[in-house]
Amino acid sequence: MAPLIVMLSDFGHDDPYVGIMKGVILTLAPETRFVDLCHRVCAGDVLQGALQLRSAVPIFPDGTTFLAVVDPGVGGDRRPIAVRSNRFHFVGPDNGLLSLALANETVETVVHLTDSRFHLAQVSQTFHGRDLFAPVAAHLSLGVPISEMGPAITDHKKLRLPEPDCHDGQITGVILGIDSFGNLSTNIPRSLIPTDQTVSVRIAGLTLSGLSTAYSDVQPGKLLALIGSQETVEIACRNGSAQDKLGVDRGQTVTLSWTDGQ
Amino acid sequence: MAPLIVMLSDFGHDDPYVGIMKGVILTLAPETRFVDLCHRVCAGDVLQGALQLRSAVPIFPDGTTFLAVVDPGVGGDRRPIAVRSNRFHFVGPDNGLLSLALANETVETVVHLTDSRFHLAQVSQTFHGRDLFAPVAAHLSLGVPISEMGPAITDHKKLRLPEPDCHDGQITGVILGIDSFGNLSTNIPRSLIPTDQTVSVRIAGLTLSGLSTAYSDVQPGKLLALIGSQETVEIACRNGSAQDKLGVDRGQTVTLSWTDGQ
Amino acid sequence: MAPLIVMLSDFGHDDPYVGIMKGVILTLAPETRFVDLCHRVCAGDVLQGALQLRSAVPIFPDGTTFLAVVDPGVGGDRRPIAVRSNRFHFVGPDNGLLSLALANETVETVVHLTDSRFHLAQVSQTFHGRDLFAPVAAHLSLGVPISEMGPAITDHKKLRLPEPDCHDGQITGVILGIDSFGNLSTNIPRSLIPTDQTVSVRIAGLTLSGLSTAYSDVQPGKLLALIGSQETVEIACRNGSAQDKLGVDRGQTVTLSWTDGQ
Repeated sequence: MAPLIVMLSDFGHDDPYVGIMKGVILTLAPETRFVDLCHRVCAGDVLQGALQLRSAVPIFPDGTTFLAVVDPGVGGDRRPIAVRSNRFHFVGPDNGLLSLALANETVETVVHLTDSRFHLAQVSQTFHGRDLFAPVAAHLSLGVPISEMGPAITDHKKLRLPEPDCHDGQITGVILGIDSFGNLSTNIPRSLIPTDQTVSVRIAGLTLSGLSTAYSDVQPGKLLALIGSQETVEIACRNGSAQDKLGVDRGQTVTLSWTDGQ
Repeated sequence: MAPLIVMLSDFGHDDPYVGIMKGVILTLAPETRFVDLCHRVCAGDVLQGALQLRSAVPIFPDGTTFLAVVDPGVGGDRRPIAVRSNRFHFVGPDNGLLSLALANETVETVVHLTDSRFHLAQVSQTFHGRDLFAPVAAHLSLGVPISEMGPAITDHKKLRLPEPDCHDGQITGVILGIDSFGNLSTNIPRSLIPTDQTVSVRIAGLTLSGLSTAYSDVQPGKLLALIGSQETVEIACRNGSAQDKLGVDRGQTVTLSWTDGQ
Repeated sequence: MAPLIVMLSDFGHDDPYVGIMKGVILTLAPETRFVDLCHRVCAGDVLQGALQLRSAVPIFPDGTTFLAVVDPGVGGDRRPIAVRSNRFHFVGPDNGLLSLALANETVETVVHLTDSRFHLAQVSQTFHGRDLFAPVAAHLSLGVPISEMGPAITDHKKLRLPEPDCHDGQITGVILGIDSFGNLSTNIPRSLIPTDQTVSVRIAGLTLSGLSTAYSDVQPGKLLALIGSQETVEIACRNGSAQDKLGVDRGQTVTLSWTDGQ
């Protein structure tokens, strides 16, 4: 099977940067197939990129290489790294971008990418995506052992997400992500929510009663709370944008409450 | 030949949803190749998606599977369907999205996708693209007979486009689509227009005299009417946007008139 | 190896035009693989497209076909052309779009695409990307000799870039490109800059002292000048947009100066 490389970056679609990375890879590994996960991560927004990776990685077939570049520290002292898990390879900057996805994997080794044999002959200080990460991803997908690419490390950077706070019939969480439909995803997993209670969801001064099953449970234009496709609480607006309607942003507090026996 | 799946959606490029659908498909059908037709259909704009599909489907090779998700009714009672025509497979929600393309095909069977063997093990109520439509498209492209996937139906939803009104040397139509250049496409086909007459095109209080052959027939910045690449009347502005210049939107009336022997 | 076609256009992502071109190609050459270099060249901006092509072409593997359509003169008297260099094929309008990339290649032949055997049966006057350029690219990638496609020409249009002006310890150049991060690239190559001097960079009334090595050499939010990934002088803002900070546009003057022995 030809190698599969899944790409994520904040390079956008206005410039040829992503295509240039693919050119580098195809020169080294001509049969590579690509999937573009997302290239419109907000510029330098490592957390957003890390959340997107986390939501997508488990669904890909074994053997996939993930190449992720949201890299505001390019050319500075952050390390370039590659990771082998029991199912995948990952390549990117050591700024936490890979860390949320890795937390769900069985990580076998993390290496600091120091061996220049696997980089382009000339490495710029502003475009490691082209000069370092792309060729490393190509070599990994061709079967070069990760251990040849640099020394193993154990102190790679890990992002820490805010944990939901649970006590006395109440869970307090936050909005972690907002998609282009204006749906708000939270850090409150389904598993924390009692199944035998009627739940109220409070956000930005509004209270939504109960968890809906689908968007169509409410009238068009109305807000609802439900379990989203990531198995966490989501606030949405049927045929509209909950973000616009509520005027909220990432980090906004969301509170679930219930009363025993209600 | 590896399967070819052509995708259309309103998922945009800011989120990893399209990439996640490809991950699901590649896990089931690892050799699948993809073409992204468009993922920037306006959110929930079934008609726009249906028109885009119609314009593209006939040009693809036999055996292509079209996977289209513009699905404001996800999780509600609209049915998920798949269609086999004499040349293609189609997968999507039964809300009319496929119907304009299907009107040009020889449809052999339409099924309601009820058999959960061809869906992901857990189907969310908010992301049928990932959990239901993507795996069905993968199985179809691998050769699973569509008849195994659910019962045949005959009452799938069909969008009805406004028909141009013709009488007494005049055709009244509407703007159906506006592309990113600001070109306005109408529902008036070339076949309705007399070839031995001088035609006048009236839109938003302006009259354009004659049908041009190409944009370059007029000076830069000037409006023109011509037969567009869909073989229908198009209003354009050379090196500019007819939409901006005329301040019009979809649904705007366009009138063609002529006088015999002129 | 299956053919590789690299595409660039100003078609954007709101319409199915790029996907339609791929459909045409796959019907003729079913195994073709695609890389999208950029489809968000500003509408009709031939210079921007030409610069993007120039930056990407050399990095692709031998045998690649480049299909570029930024074509404000479609349907007019500009010629459709194809080019064979010692490494690649190129297809596009004869408006200079290919010329900056070709200046770095060993061009073997340029042909005027007149032979309709290699076009679609019906060629519209508004979408040569679909009807003429896509099928020609498919036929070239399948091995049809370019000489069969039309007569050789030698007078294809060449864009001329402004040359940097060097004299008496000073180089005056201009901003050629601005990327989506707001980084400003100039026409001043590294090779013109003395390596044993302290250089000052002047733009929009501001003076930046010295060339930095990486973005991280300055504090977040601060401007810097450095050698960018194209080996030319670039003005950037760490974790920000130099374009926004300076309020400049393409064509803006940039001056480098130094004093001997400083």
